Amino acid sequence: MITVALAKGALLKDSVSRFEKAGLDFSSVLESGNRQLMVPSPCGRARALLVRNGDVPVYVAYGQAQLGVVGYDVLREQQMPLAQLVDLGFGECHMAVAVKNNSGYERAADLPPHCRVASKFTHCARSFFDGLELPVELVHLTGSVELGPMTGMTEAIVDLVATGRTLRDNGLVAIEELFHSTARLVGNPLALRMDRGELRAIIEAIRTEGNLSEGLI
Amino acid sequence: MITVALAKGALLKDSVSRFEKAGLDFSSVLESGNRQLMVPSPCGRARALLVRNGDVPVYVAYGQAQLGVVGYDVLREQQMPLAQLVDLGFGECHMAVAVKNNSGYERAADLPPHCRVASKFTHCARSFFDGLELPVELVHLTGSVELGPMTGMTEAIVDLVATGRTLRDNGLVAIEELFHSTARLVGNPLALRMDRGELRAIIEAIRTEGNLSEGLI
Repeated sequence: MITVALAKGALLKDSVSRFEKAGLDFSSVLESGNRQLMVPSPCGRARALLVRNGDVPVYVAYGQAQLGVVGYDVLREQQMPLAQLVDLGFGECHMAVAVKNNSGYERAADLPPHCRVASKFTHCARSFFDGLELPVELVHLTGSVELGPMTGMTEAIVDLVATGRTLRDNGLVAIEELFHSTARLVGNPLALRMDRGELRAIIEAIRTEGNLSEGLI
Repeated sequence: MITVALAKGALLKDSVSRFEKAGLDFSSVLESGNRQLMVPSPCGRARALLVRNGDVPVYVAYGQAQLGVVGYDVLREQQMPLAQLVDLGFGECHMAVAVKNNSGYERAADLPPHCRVASKFTHCARSFFDGLELPVELVHLTGSVELGPMTGMTEAIVDLVATGRTLRDNGLVAIEELFHSTARLVGNPLALRMDRGELRAIIEAIRTEGNLSEGLI
């Protein structure tokens, strides 16, 4: 039985569609009434675990799922022992430093030393500011990070930016990009080593499908 | 201007009602179309910050809000420097150890040493198992913790239990309680020390209201 960890939310629809093209039908997770967290595919040889974005790496790293789909941002933040297999291309966004649009800061290095920075991604933010040799006080928040600068609690934020609308709506502007992120197919390293071809076939089908849709083949 | 940090979700309605009785009307945060994160009260002397449960202690500890309402479970997990002012009584639940109902474990001390335990509240879980002198491997999850035992990844979970329905629906049973939790009114210690009576009046009104509704006066 192959188990695939899928992230609830923005990546789910595209994730299901990629696995469908590789012969695994998890479309019932998309039904609005679905409350199940473990969903079998009709073919009987696979099941999906429906978990939070941040939990996908845990289930794959511990081997409860052999494969998973998760944003590169989460992989960078968590640093779990996973094999990154395919860049799936969807879920595009970037991790950025943003400030109030009247702050006058034009790049991250302009921020005052020891200022506060709010983020859900404090590991990513820490390594970025360490790289700049700019000491900052990171404030870990779990949501609505834009309230940090709005309330005056922090000078800046480090957060994911997709369309930029949330920033604009809240009077913020991105001044520097940390990295670009897309959804990734990841695998459990041990499961991949023990694989007798079943996982490889799925991975290859997903990889080929991605290349086809990008016109690379 | 008084700023109050309110947690989105299950505690919101009761929180708004308690402040209303103390003369601060934040009822517009309950309107279904509300997307604002900072909501002024009509009286003009206060505003509410609408944040995630886990972020309430951050805004209050940093002084961006002088008062906040948050579950005791979050206070225990985060250990931020806050003044606990009033036990508001609502949002009742308890933190518990739960296992599969066919596992045979009757109390936490029955769990095998070095077994895995999944939780969103890993600090609470760590201090509980340390107290038992039972070494366990904690697996931090951000949601749907019940999948830990269901998938075989962990032997047990430590999670909040309100009605117990989620446990029952997933074939789990609570075997030991860590602590009881209710919503608490918390305050920023410095703001309370500098207060010229304005905060005290609100706190007293909320405290008295709580006693009245419990028939203690």
